[in-house]
Amino acid sequence: MKKSLEKQRHSLAHVLAKAILELNPNAEYAMGPAIENGFYYDFKNIDVSEKDFQEIEKKMKKIIEKDVPFKKKTLSKDEAKKIFKNQPFKLELLKDLDQKVSIYETGDFIDLCEGPHVKSTGDLNPESFKLDRTSGAYFKGSEKNEMLQRIYGLAFETEKDLNEYLENRKEAEKRDHRKIGKKQELFMFDEEVGQGLPLYLPKGAMLRKLLMDFAMETYLANGYEIVSTPHIANEDLWETSGHLKHYKKDMYGPLEVDGKKYRLKPMNCPFHVKMYNSKTRSYRELPKRWAEMGTVYRYEKSGELHGLTRPRAFTQDDAHIICRGDQLEEEVINALKITKYIYSTLGMENLIFKLSVRDPGKKEDYFGTDAEWEKAEKALEDALKSFGQDEYVRDEGEAAFYAPKIDIDAVDAMGRRWQLSTIQVDFNVTSRFKMTYINEKGDEETPFMIHRALLGSIERFLGVYIEHTGGEFPVWLAPVQAWIIPISEKQEEYAFEIKEKLRKNGIRVKVEGVNDTLSKAIRNGENQKIPYLLVVGDREKKSGKVNVRFRGEKKGELKIEELIEEMDSS
Amino acid sequence: MKKSLEKQRHSLAHVLAKAILELNPNAEYAMGPAIENGFYYDFKNIDVSEKDFQEIEKKMKKIIEKDVPFKKKTLSKDEAKKIFKNQPFKLELLKDLDQKVSIYETGDFIDLCEGPHVKSTGDLNPESFKLDRTSGAYFKGSEKNEMLQRIYGLAFETEKDLNEYLENRKEAEKRDHRKIGKKQELFMFDEEVGQGLPLYLPKGAMLRKLLMDFAMETYLANGYEIVSTPHIANEDLWETSGHLKHYKKDMYGPLEVDGKKYRLKPMNCPFHVKMYNSKTRSYRELPKRWAEMGTVYRYEKSGELHGLTRPRAFTQDDAHIICRGDQLEEEVINALKITKYIYSTLGMENLIFKLSVRDPGKKEDYFGTDAEWEKAEKALEDALKSFGQDEYVRDEGEAAFYAPKIDIDAVDAMGRRWQLSTIQVDFNVTSRFKMTYINEKGDEETPFMIHRALLGSIERFLGVYIEHTGGEFPVWLAPVQAWIIPISEKQEEYAFEIKEKLRKNGIRVKVEGVNDTLSKAIRNGENQKIPYLLVVGDREKKSGKVNVRFRGEKKGELKIEELIEEMDSS
Repeated sequence: MKKSLEKQRHSLAHVLAKAILELNPNAEYAMGPAIENGFYYDFKNIDVSEKDFQEIEKKMKKIIEKDVPFKKKTLSKDEAKKIFKNQPFKLELLKDLDQKVSIYETGDFIDLCEGPHVKSTGDLNPESFKLDRTSGAYFKGSEKNEMLQRIYGLAFETEKDLNEYLENRKEAEKRDHRKIGKKQELFMFDEEVGQGLPLYLPKGAMLRKLLMDFAMETYLANGYEIVSTPHIANEDLWETSGHLKHYKKDMYGPLEVDGKKYRLKPMNCPFHVKMYNSKTRSYRELPKRWAEMGTVYRYEKSGELHGLTRPRAFTQDDAHIICRGDQLEEEVINALKITKYIYSTLGMENLIFKLSVRDPGKKEDYFGTDAEWEKAEKALEDALKSFGQDEYVRDEGEAAFYAPKIDIDAVDAMGRRWQLSTIQVDFNVTSRFKMTYINEKGDEETPFMIHRALLGSIERFLGVYIEHTGGEFPVWLAPVQAWIIPISEKQEEYAFEIKEKLRKNGIRVKVEGVNDTLSKAIRNGENQKIPYLLVVGDREKKSGKVNVRFRGEKKGELKIEELIEEMDSS
Repeated sequence: MKKSLEKQRHSLAHVLAKAILELNPNAEYAMGPAIENGFYYDFKNIDVSEKDFQEIEKKMKKIIEKDVPFKKKTLSKDEAKKIFKNQPFKLELLKDLDQKVSIYETGDFIDLCEGPHVKSTGDLNPESFKLDRTSGAYFKGSEKNEMLQRIYGLAFETEKDLNEYLENRKEAEKRDHRKIGKKQELFMFDEEVGQGLPLYLPKGAMLRKLLMDFAMETYLANGYEIVSTPHIANEDLWETSGHLKHYKKDMYGPLEVDGKKYRLKPMNCPFHVKMYNSKTRSYRELPKRWAEMGTVYRYEKSGELHGLTRPRAFTQDDAHIICRGDQLEEEVINALKITKYIYSTLGMENLIFKLSVRDPGKKEDYFGTDAEWEKAEKALEDALKSFGQDEYVRDEGEAAFYAPKIDIDAVDAMGRRWQLSTIQVDFNVTSRFKMTYINEKGDEETPFMIHRALLGSIERFLGVYIEHTGGEFPVWLAPVQAWIIPISEKQEEYAFEIKEKLRKNGIRVKVEGVNDTLSKAIRNGENQKIPYLLVVGDREKKSGKVNVRFRGEKKGELKIEELIEEMDSS
């Protein structure tokens, strides 16, 4: 958040509190910070519902109009106690503070506050904020404390920004992937099966398959090889990999087989390493690029589960590249190129690149040698530049303890950022599993290993993508690409004939709506976001054509061959 | 086993014992039945190794030559005890018999035996049997008893049959899928990962993917829809499905999540049922045909694990067809047709069909109503006939308690039968999960549900198929279809150019052998059963061609376009 915007939001929180106190002098006020997209303030002894927002906003605007200055004062704790003698929450907050405290005065409203604030309420834009909602909230966020009423506000620099945010949010609600998933019958959850475990209905399973096929074909075309590994492994493996030490609380299991404990896999890497280590490798064989649609299981608290974007089991488009040091940069460039290709093919062009490196002041906290880290960080940074991505965020201290990495956020149609892709260099696994290759001189050397998941989690990606597209998928990815709608039963046979022709040309098509009126059938198809609706009546039957509607647009009568050509190129 | 052949094998067991006693009068003999492919006899006080087989066989042949009759006698237990007074195992066996027992005399050799036997040793073919191997075996198969030495013999009706069996067996040993899997680097196992859990290396994973893609595409083209479900589920689900009651010892787990117990799925059906039950279904929607490449987990004792043919986790090409009674027969016919198509495409034409129905004398032992069973059994039988499969085995009493079924065995290149496909009607699941649909009259009705897995287990099928083909897969299924072998480094660039051209035409191709001599590279490629070896030297580079070898056959120089055409059609 920009500093100036944060100041405005924080100041609006004070204005909100001042307004509430003017309307209700008995109100007790607790804390009111700036937050993402706005601000909030917590109160006791108020009874505010959304109906009251307009009145409160009016009051707030009046305060802004009056141009009341924010005055900061520093005083002793005892002086502050006197000022807040009727405000028990402020007295409670004072207990945690030093002997010198600061307050802000805005007219007769005084708050215990470090600031900073705008100079005067007149500096606030009365048109770019809006009260949003109200909820219960424990004082200081602890269940042990009293429950207060929180009022949330939205605030942006301009009215335009506020309206854009509101529109995006409205759109995002409409596009909630759980709603669309239900409406289009893509996936479902079932309590008896278990929380966080999606079941894909036919259309969702086809969408998922098409997406995974597209990703895997892209990897294969780029010199990757496919591998496939089990979903469970003995704890011995997770002991060696270090997962049981560092990742146990996220892992499922154990379950016993023949007196040995097994775990569902939270990651695919140890299996790929096992395959690498199954024979002696020469420098000539490298790089190995092994890709797997690997289903992993990670514990999430039930309260944090959210549709497909946060499930408990998900499939990664995971690959490991095992290479020599001199191949590292090129391999990262290649992974960046593939990422860009995949996302632009999917219509998500807006990507944000983040390079996470070591905290240079705490080198001792990281696994791997200095030389390895320097090599890898430079390779990642050089790769970003060679790839032409000069604009990226460089985060010192954001690397994992075992790996520098490039994370890539995709920005969706509603302007939301989603961290989806990751490209990491791993020093932990190569060392723990003692991976080696024989170099040109005949000596053993440790290879570099890159983990990369470009869609990331197929489940999470699908959740994001359903919202990004609003369920209106590109034709090549639409699980059902066309409906053939016969006007009456008389054309049903003809409809099935066409269906067979289209199917043989690889088009995913259904005959629908014979029992509905034409307008209802079309409405259903449009609701279901079926790209092509092909109406067939007597005329079309006679002429051997279909009447084509593409996403609401009437394209008129087309011959089957013309339609196939049109669909292939869309 | 034919009765006459069984008689011969059993008689040969007596001849073996007679021969052993002639060679070693102190031998004690226990039991000697006919078995699959031959016979055995268990002895004490002998010390026979395979070196001695020739001498024993010679002795046996002499006995056959002498044409000694088999004479049956019935006598009292006491008389028998006298005869076998020096044969403690026969005395032991006598204890379990009634007062009247029967013995067979063959010259001076007497055995406690019910028969039947051939009339005389002269009726046996001295050229169609062979001693095979020896092993330890507990008397009466119980660990509590003494360990004896068992001698196995092979026996067939003709010498030709014997030789064919021996050749097939030799071939089968050479084609052991575990050996080929290692040689071609298709898959591996790893103790640290766990027993019975295959890891597919790149070529094996590609083979598996191609096979699964072929199967799924076939199902989709036949009106199936793809679905996808989790690998674990709450025990509540397995309680409802009855698996925890009837199948628990084969199931993995439990593992705990948020205090609830979960199990790895041993079957996919309950998930498909959950999806069916997620909304009200109308008769107009049926049939539903839902296919999933579903990975299931079933416990196998570690001693019974065997490569891919018996692992602990495997993926089924599973589908459930939920249909009305009037659709049942057609759906079964459709499944039979698809089975035949798949197996003939894969080059396994020899299928044996088995219909398993209720034991008509024990109708009360089966789940489901009489009407349902009659309907389903008739549908399966009619389907076999309509499909044109008049030849099938009808096994009364072989149905599962919940389902009549058609099992299909495939016969491999070595004449071995493998039960792979199954098509079952299930009355248990439809009832337990209270599945319904609204019929034409608006009433609730229970649908029929067909389980079908046509390849069965992908792992098991692959194991069988690797042995059936000896690792020489059809070109369309070969994980690597071609190697380009440059004669020297000078043609390497040209080799990679061609590779890219072929790859863009969907051909799976590698550049190999540049560091080997040409003959070694070709030998390697043939050893790895790579269908096409494409040699490029200076001449080919100049003419823009490749020198083609297809499975050892020299096809001469071809233009790249000609090669692509040839490969597409093979």
